[in-house]
Amino acid sequence: MPLFFRTYGQGTFPMKTVATIGSGLIGKSWAIVFARAGITVRMFDADPARRAAVKDEIALDLRAMARHGLITDPAEALSRITVVDSIARAVKGVDYVQESVLERVDVKTAVCREIDEVMDAGVIVGSSSSGIPASQFTGELKNRERFFVVHPVNPPHLVPLVEIVPAPWSDLDLVPRIREFLDAVGQAPIVVNREIEGFILNRLQGALLNEAWALYAEGYASLADIDLTVSHGLGLRWAFMGPFETIDLNAPGGIDDYARRLSPLYHSIALQRRDPKPWPDEAIERARQERREALAIDRIPERQRWRDEYLMKQLVFRKKAVED
Amino acid sequence: MPLFFRTYGQGTFPMKTVATIGSGLIGKSWAIVFARAGITVRMFDADPARRAAVKDEIALDLRAMARHGLITDPAEALSRITVVDSIARAVKGVDYVQESVLERVDVKTAVCREIDEVMDAGVIVGSSSSGIPASQFTGELKNRERFFVVHPVNPPHLVPLVEIVPAPWSDLDLVPRIREFLDAVGQAPIVVNREIEGFILNRLQGALLNEAWALYAEGYASLADIDLTVSHGLGLRWAFMGPFETIDLNAPGGIDDYARRLSPLYHSIALQRRDPKPWPDEAIERARQERREALAIDRIPERQRWRDEYLMKQLVFRKKAVED
Repeated sequence: MPLFFRTYGQGTFPMKTVATIGSGLIGKSWAIVFARAGITVRMFDADPARRAAVKDEIALDLRAMARHGLITDPAEALSRITVVDSIARAVKGVDYVQESVLERVDVKTAVCREIDEVMDAGVIVGSSSSGIPASQFTGELKNRERFFVVHPVNPPHLVPLVEIVPAPWSDLDLVPRIREFLDAVGQAPIVVNREIEGFILNRLQGALLNEAWALYAEGYASLADIDLTVSHGLGLRWAFMGPFETIDLNAPGGIDDYARRLSPLYHSIALQRRDPKPWPDEAIERARQERREALAIDRIPERQRWRDEYLMKQLVFRKKAVED
Repeated sequence: MPLFFRTYGQGTFPMKTVATIGSGLIGKSWAIVFARAGITVRMFDADPARRAAVKDEIALDLRAMARHGLITDPAEALSRITVVDSIARAVKGVDYVQESVLERVDVKTAVCREIDEVMDAGVIVGSSSSGIPASQFTGELKNRERFFVVHPVNPPHLVPLVEIVPAPWSDLDLVPRIREFLDAVGQAPIVVNREIEGFILNRLQGALLNEAWALYAEGYASLADIDLTVSHGLGLRWAFMGPFETIDLNAPGGIDDYARRLSPLYHSIALQRRDPKPWPDEAIERARQERREALAIDRIPERQRWRDEYLMKQLVFRKKAVED
């Protein structure tokens, strides 16, 4: 049984210094993940304005975490992070590199080539790519067997799941090491055995979203009611049990008993969706109106802060619920 | 914005006495929902053994809720519940009837006919049917316009979502009244505008399960890792925000911006699943083995109690998180 929440840095792991390349939302959050685990972080971003701003932004995030008891010494964690002005300065001498630059094949290719040029022997590189498989931007590299997709959920310091996806030429012997490392820094790593569009997380999210959009477009329920179905129904169990464990506990004889009883229903539902359309423009426009009535566009940042505050409270709750 | 948790019985609503027909897991839990809201409950079950056992079982559940602070006076709530020995004695004089008998068309038809015979004018009947639409078992009733599917999640006293699904002949003017009533007793009702196989909740669950089984059958990840993807990833947001609000906050311009960026990816994923197979027997057998290694078959009841304890803690947390 996996834990719901891990205390950072309890394991012994050999990664003592890491580089984060790209200092947007994801790169910044990765720096927090590593620094809170006691790791020295060197950050790089191609944009001087980002390099100038990022440590102040991280300081704010660390203070919010400290308010929730998720970190004891935010100043010490911050002191582990250094911003540098070249990829070479970031990467030289580190044990691990996390790349989180723009989600575009040409950008990923160029940045990974630079990393490849200066990385020491034995270094592992993870890419935060949320959709592009590593095979599309690492094939020409000298050290291509040491590059993986290491895809987090946004933001990784508040949502622990990380997908490790090797390219066809990745050294699979490194996978357990990456998994152990991510586990030790407090994330919840999973292994995707081979490349597939959307990896696991976005395929599962997409399957649910596609059905939600179809039901909404066909007028079966309001946007708000479909949201309630998850936030007050399915999501209450999925917050601490995956879909397979959920059904394993929902039939007297376990998962195979459940499958015998309900597989025909779910197959029938799938057969009704054999001709999938893109999310319809008309439904998107209605959804936009319904959402903007619930939340004005200029209040989105405020609601995002509320979401992140809630995620922090929830992490504290999960930690406590496991210890009880 | 919906609340995450409601205090029972804060609204003023006209349903003062209800009947619950069928005293299995669902019927029993409905009795708790009503009794904790201050409503007088008359319970019936065709099986004398169930009638003899059910109040002691409810007493246990109420004490567990009291331990978590989810109810203040379990003895008082229990005293509101009376077990009676006929449908007529249960239904005569009540304001609302919740039917939770076996999920079979012939059984539902027979029981609803009995209710129909003895119900007073003005009474509304909700069926806990999780899959059979009301049109399949209420068409011949004298009061058929007053019968609805009122489908809860198991168990309703711990998971608030309820789907109200009218049959084609249901009186739609009653829908807002049912919704208000369920809301007032602490549930989270949604309205399904017309009948569809699986309603909303099980269609959303099914879409995710179908993709999860396909990924597992094709060897992309282990069962445990697919579960982690939800319990440590998607489920952390879905525990308090629906899928539409989640994506509304995940693009700078809101839900329509997200749709423009990511609809093509999700459409492409759907196109890969145009030939859905029933969950493969081979995968079910592997899943059975993987689950039984994680949890022996005779430990399922213990894990179900753990799940229900966790749900209670989570309800307390949600209530507090909203008040903060």
